[in-house]
Amino acid sequence: MKNETISLMLQHQSIRKFKSDPVPPEHLHTIMECAQKASTSSNMQAYSVINVTDPELRSQLAILAGNQIYVEQAPVFLVWCADLHRLQGSVSDQTVKPTAENFLVSSVDAALASQNAALAAESMGLGIVYIGGIRNQLEEVIQLLQLPELVYPVFGMCIGKPDQEPSPHPRMPVESILHENKYSTVHNEELLRQYNETISNYMDQRTQGQRKANWSQMMESKLSQPDRILGETLQKQGFGFR
Amino acid sequence: MKNETISLMLQHQSIRKFKSDPVPPEHLHTIMECAQKASTSSNMQAYSVINVTDPELRSQLAILAGNQIYVEQAPVFLVWCADLHRLQGSVSDQTVKPTAENFLVSSVDAALASQNAALAAESMGLGIVYIGGIRNQLEEVIQLLQLPELVYPVFGMCIGKPDQEPSPHPRMPVESILHENKYSTVHNEELLRQYNETISNYMDQRTQGQRKANWSQMMESKLSQPDRILGETLQKQGFGFR
Repeated sequence: MKNETISLMLQHQSIRKFKSDPVPPEHLHTIMECAQKASTSSNMQAYSVINVTDPELRSQLAILAGNQIYVEQAPVFLVWCADLHRLQGSVSDQTVKPTAENFLVSSVDAALASQNAALAAESMGLGIVYIGGIRNQLEEVIQLLQLPELVYPVFGMCIGKPDQEPSPHPRMPVESILHENKYSTVHNEELLRQYNETISNYMDQRTQGQRKANWSQMMESKLSQPDRILGETLQKQGFGFR
Repeated sequence: MKNETISLMLQHQSIRKFKSDPVPPEHLHTIMECAQKASTSSNMQAYSVINVTDPELRSQLAILAGNQIYVEQAPVFLVWCADLHRLQGSVSDQTVKPTAENFLVSSVDAALASQNAALAAESMGLGIVYIGGIRNQLEEVIQLLQLPELVYPVFGMCIGKPDQEPSPHPRMPVESILHENKYSTVHNEELLRQYNETISNYMDQRTQGQRKANWSQMMESKLSQPDRILGETLQKQGFGFR
């Protein structure tokens, strides 16, 4: 089955080079309305979005995110935050507890809303890229955006008219992801071999023969880098993992 | 700006009553392909989906999720899992570390993919509801679905032809969610007052005058319930929060 929405999703590519055309405020408003219609746990709506319009702030965030120039240059840059602060401020008799559950619910609320926003933007002919690098130096970003207790930035998102057409990034076969009734590892080895070959060919083509790394090699290299350490800063912000 | 995708999102309602018509396997396949095209951190694709087709298993999960009968009755029930196990099995020289970052990345990967799946299903005329109740008794669900180390169920999702037309659930005004350059609480009180009124009217109408709780009251009642405690089970599964 094909329709406009499905075709849109299947065409998704992260965009890291944008034209300078601004995104009209009414389009951003629609993008946000779509974001808000995503499912949210018990209607808690436990997330906030910081629209970073100040050029100086953008430039600082671009550096903190690991010198990602598109964070500075994209027409729109949003920081998606898990937000239990609003919830805490809306009740008088109860407190939001520092549990893994509440950390998860607010992070997932932000993620579901953001994915609607991404698709709404793409349906308008805009391109997007998620910026996990906003967690590189979590504490500095929290200070820059003046995030209060019980709020933390989950990821950023650049939005604007695409100025590039990257080739589609192949995903694993559905069989690698979808299991029936129980978690199965039966065909893992064969599926991984196939996917490694697919990615190796894709990289070969994309880099005109400069790089042929397969998926396992890319993941090995990724895992060899030091992980972002968020726990302490998250706890300072009032989140917990009980 | 309006288009098919935006209209679809704006119409979203959680569906908790389904017709018995099965979802054809090729439609589920398309739903999964759409899910996989969502952004994923560094192409890690750190999630798996368990399609629960066994009626006995369904009935057990429905009970564990807090006696949600639609978990048993929906034509399709998917359990969306954060999955670092596949990643760990695909590399030879590195280990996935028990950091909050890795817990977050895998949970967000599952969430982004699931939201694409939800919209793909809705674009086919199907309805969905997320099931957070799958975390009520996390350890039992992990055992039932035979989830290995580094895999945990983030939420469930029922999918099928809607057999109800619930009225739209109003969200907060965009101004409550969207901030510019820094987190702002300036208009919070007035926005909350408005939203409480909106929700109170909505509940009044929806329950034919039986219940007029506003949002703050609903959140207070929600927060007064004991939180799900996930931390210990998650750590047993190999996740961590450093």
